[in-house]
Amino acid sequence: MLGQMMTQPLLISSLIDHAERYHGGTEIISVETDGTVTQTNWAEIARNARRLASALGALGLEPQDRIGTLAWNNRRHLEIYYAVSGAGYVCHTVNPRLFPEQLTYIINHAQDRVLFFDATFLPLVAALQEHLTEVRHFVLMGPRSEEATAQVKDLKFYDELIETGSNDFQWPSFDENTASSLCYTSGTTGNPKGVLYSHRSTVLHSFASNTKDVIGYSARDVVMPVVPMFHVNAWGSPYACAMSGSRMVLPGPGLQGDALVNLIDTYGVTLAMGVPTIWQGLLASAARSGSKLESLQSTVIGGAACPPSMIETFRETYGVDTVHAWGMSEMSPLGSANTPLAKHLNLPLDEQHRLRENQGRPPFGVELKIVDDDGNDLPHDGETQGDLMVRGHWVLDSYFLMQDQDLLQDGWFATGDVATLDPDGYMTIRDRSKDIIKSGGEWISSVELENIAVAHPKLATAAVVGVPHPKWDERPLLVAVKADGEDPSEQELLGFFDGKIAKWQVPDKVVFVDALPLNATGKVLKRNLRDDFKDALLGS
Amino acid sequence: MLGQMMTQPLLISSLIDHAERYHGGTEIISVETDGTVTQTNWAEIARNARRLASALGALGLEPQDRIGTLAWNNRRHLEIYYAVSGAGYVCHTVNPRLFPEQLTYIINHAQDRVLFFDATFLPLVAALQEHLTEVRHFVLMGPRSEEATAQVKDLKFYDELIETGSNDFQWPSFDENTASSLCYTSGTTGNPKGVLYSHRSTVLHSFASNTKDVIGYSARDVVMPVVPMFHVNAWGSPYACAMSGSRMVLPGPGLQGDALVNLIDTYGVTLAMGVPTIWQGLLASAARSGSKLESLQSTVIGGAACPPSMIETFRETYGVDTVHAWGMSEMSPLGSANTPLAKHLNLPLDEQHRLRENQGRPPFGVELKIVDDDGNDLPHDGETQGDLMVRGHWVLDSYFLMQDQDLLQDGWFATGDVATLDPDGYMTIRDRSKDIIKSGGEWISSVELENIAVAHPKLATAAVVGVPHPKWDERPLLVAVKADGEDPSEQELLGFFDGKIAKWQVPDKVVFVDALPLNATGKVLKRNLRDDFKDALLGS
Repeated sequence: MLGQMMTQPLLISSLIDHAERYHGGTEIISVETDGTVTQTNWAEIARNARRLASALGALGLEPQDRIGTLAWNNRRHLEIYYAVSGAGYVCHTVNPRLFPEQLTYIINHAQDRVLFFDATFLPLVAALQEHLTEVRHFVLMGPRSEEATAQVKDLKFYDELIETGSNDFQWPSFDENTASSLCYTSGTTGNPKGVLYSHRSTVLHSFASNTKDVIGYSARDVVMPVVPMFHVNAWGSPYACAMSGSRMVLPGPGLQGDALVNLIDTYGVTLAMGVPTIWQGLLASAARSGSKLESLQSTVIGGAACPPSMIETFRETYGVDTVHAWGMSEMSPLGSANTPLAKHLNLPLDEQHRLRENQGRPPFGVELKIVDDDGNDLPHDGETQGDLMVRGHWVLDSYFLMQDQDLLQDGWFATGDVATLDPDGYMTIRDRSKDIIKSGGEWISSVELENIAVAHPKLATAAVVGVPHPKWDERPLLVAVKADGEDPSEQELLGFFDGKIAKWQVPDKVVFVDALPLNATGKVLKRNLRDDFKDALLGS
Repeated sequence: MLGQMMTQPLLISSLIDHAERYHGGTEIISVETDGTVTQTNWAEIARNARRLASALGALGLEPQDRIGTLAWNNRRHLEIYYAVSGAGYVCHTVNPRLFPEQLTYIINHAQDRVLFFDATFLPLVAALQEHLTEVRHFVLMGPRSEEATAQVKDLKFYDELIETGSNDFQWPSFDENTASSLCYTSGTTGNPKGVLYSHRSTVLHSFASNTKDVIGYSARDVVMPVVPMFHVNAWGSPYACAMSGSRMVLPGPGLQGDALVNLIDTYGVTLAMGVPTIWQGLLASAARSGSKLESLQSTVIGGAACPPSMIETFRETYGVDTVHAWGMSEMSPLGSANTPLAKHLNLPLDEQHRLRENQGRPPFGVELKIVDDDGNDLPHDGETQGDLMVRGHWVLDSYFLMQDQDLLQDGWFATGDVATLDPDGYMTIRDRSKDIIKSGGEWISSVELENIAVAHPKLATAAVVGVPHPKWDERPLLVAVKADGEDPSEQELLGFFDGKIAKWQVPDKVVFVDALPLNATGKVLKRNLRDDFKDALLGS
């Protein structure tokens, strides 16, 4: 017997409908690609989204056709988000920082039929156009520009395109499990893989983001997503902020510290989200300029582990609460957020602060567990390390166009991270699974060894990888790049670990290289190092 | 094309699973029916719910069989909530304050197969047992009592029943639209009607409740639902608090002010929900005892319009923020909550306070509109009054066992309230639709006239109803009950309206009665008055 409640699909269009109806006058501040600032609001975003959806309908697209974007965080990008998904197409946000070959691969693999791009990327699109064999329509996100017309064949212009759309367009209704949006992950191995989100997963993710103990956007917040809209949908903020009716400040292309401090102080930003490197620039700029970041109440930091010193600076110098969060493209991205429990409030302040340093606990809707190599569940004791597994309403089931590959293990997705979980579900990322070193049954964190090595004054940089060892299966190898004019000995570098970690964790050997191999996003290609030095310890 | 995300059903069992896994040690304080206090936690609630679900399975029930409760807010009731819905039965919370005939009607109409009840209701159940023809198992919520055994035939005992259940019981998975729980509304007309909630509607309602701008329970809150668990599931708090991992204080049968103040101060309650009359008692008690209600941060007030003076007392005397909310059994119940927008924060404080007095704005997931008699949409200008219509994910579609009746109008549910909506969606309830008086195309609020009349020192009480009028269709009639020893004239009473409202709104006539007809919950049966006096103005 079913309940007797209205059953409406959970659709992305209902988010923008809500914002239009009840938060229409709430401002959206947008830094445009040319640096000017425009002020619009949810009602206008919604109206333009409907006009654009109507205009897209006239281009002869099929339902769920992919529509790509190469764009910064700005108002037109926001309109595209809602127009494309709302009309039943798939919004494919492409990371413009990738290498041209990867861009071509991704846009062709997704079969993008339309490509929207900011003026910044005009030269890039001009160069790639002939390779983008699936794209039927190239649309520059701005007014007509004859200069641009000369560079890209059959170029359309956003501001003209929406003029052809109707204000009376009505959002269609369809199955809430319909595909809504697509992001490719750029791993360090293999081709990028697509994560195909659904309307349902997106709306449920927005609900979870808006619960008080996760991010909890409110209609009194001025929200600045510094994390790009081409990176896991700016952590879902364009959706969650429509749900809550928050003001948004979209910072455009300029993500330098000075620009961000200026936006915070000018528009009274209360809540901002980004990766640690962005905040390093911001904190340096605030220190220089003397800004007190007065309006800012909280930052959400994820994408990489946030150094405790950064959380402390935000708290002690600026009175800003930092929510340390963790997620992945494969999970929309929200996996955990560090907000306290009632019992923590009675602890000494130092202890409370220490507890805020890890990656936090999962909200309702996501489950986390850790397993050993055989897939057996490991205890949540805060000590035991294991492969982190997730499942939940906004976790992927399979990669785009790879349905035939059995991605999950017993219904769980293997994150590729090694973590600990404490009895309350607070999670600490220890390493990437493939980078952890398994020595005689014990696990050694390559990250921990690298953090020590790079502090050596005679090294420019360093990486640690596990390589085959006849007795211990695997042992750590330090791959070091000497600092300019320095010539440290192996002895000297290995001695540097003394007293900093257990003796059995010290690398067995050092090899010197001129440079470390990096991928497009600057990550060390440890797989290459493991290949190159796979025999380094076999004579041991 | 569908998204490639995991699709798990939204089930009530996943709420208690989450609380057990990540908030197991978080306390549940329960005032038992005998007045003692027990302290348990989410892990134990979850374990007992699984054992109870297992035990229920051995009673030979069918999926979605209804299981009734006559119970206060306490831990066993909480366990029953999760055991019954989690196992796939329907948790039917019955309001024990109804008349015995209504209880019999409701329990039989719902075909409850099991009836759980608190010791308080032993005499009631003993008296009703022979009439409750559908119930197969009567279960007293406590340990074995020989005294009770003598009063109810084949009586079972909760504490023994769960002992027969298995700890290893696993929650079944099923369609999220499956019926989960049932509440009957006791209107002033006709038989009570059942609202049959689903797992999906309940989980989505919990998400909305937990968003920051609605109630926003957190894992740092100590939540006391004073609103009964037999009244729209204590506004959904038993579900939402499992989602957020909040501590709960379940106040049992004693809802007097002194008892509530004591619970707040003893257990550090931060957030409490209830109807205005409950808070009147609490505020009077706090004033007497000198309690400062120090831990209390906010109250959520609904169920009836909250007097502005109460919001002010909470704010000025106790530093407590009041969220004025509105809802109905038919909507799970959340329809709107009054929390501010960003633009309100710049207004003078007096103005901000005034804006907090109305019933608030809808969260994402609910839509509100007002219509005229012909169903045409009316403007959201804060002035125009109309019939309030709602639709949304947790609004009913039809009443239980009345699927064949076309309840909705164009997909919207008519709330029976007359309201205004302002451009931001803030809603003010003006009257019940059936009680508003439609005089020559203008609407007159019976509530407003009554508020004036009852202030007359020579009246004990009064009601105002619209009755047929040859020229104006309907005109207001004042039905008055004289105060002891007083004998006011009609002239005197009608003169009392002078200067307080527009002349054309003053009632046409006064009739005196000895008492007003009331329903089981103390509401005036205005329908009876309209029938009794339908000819009162026909000679005009």
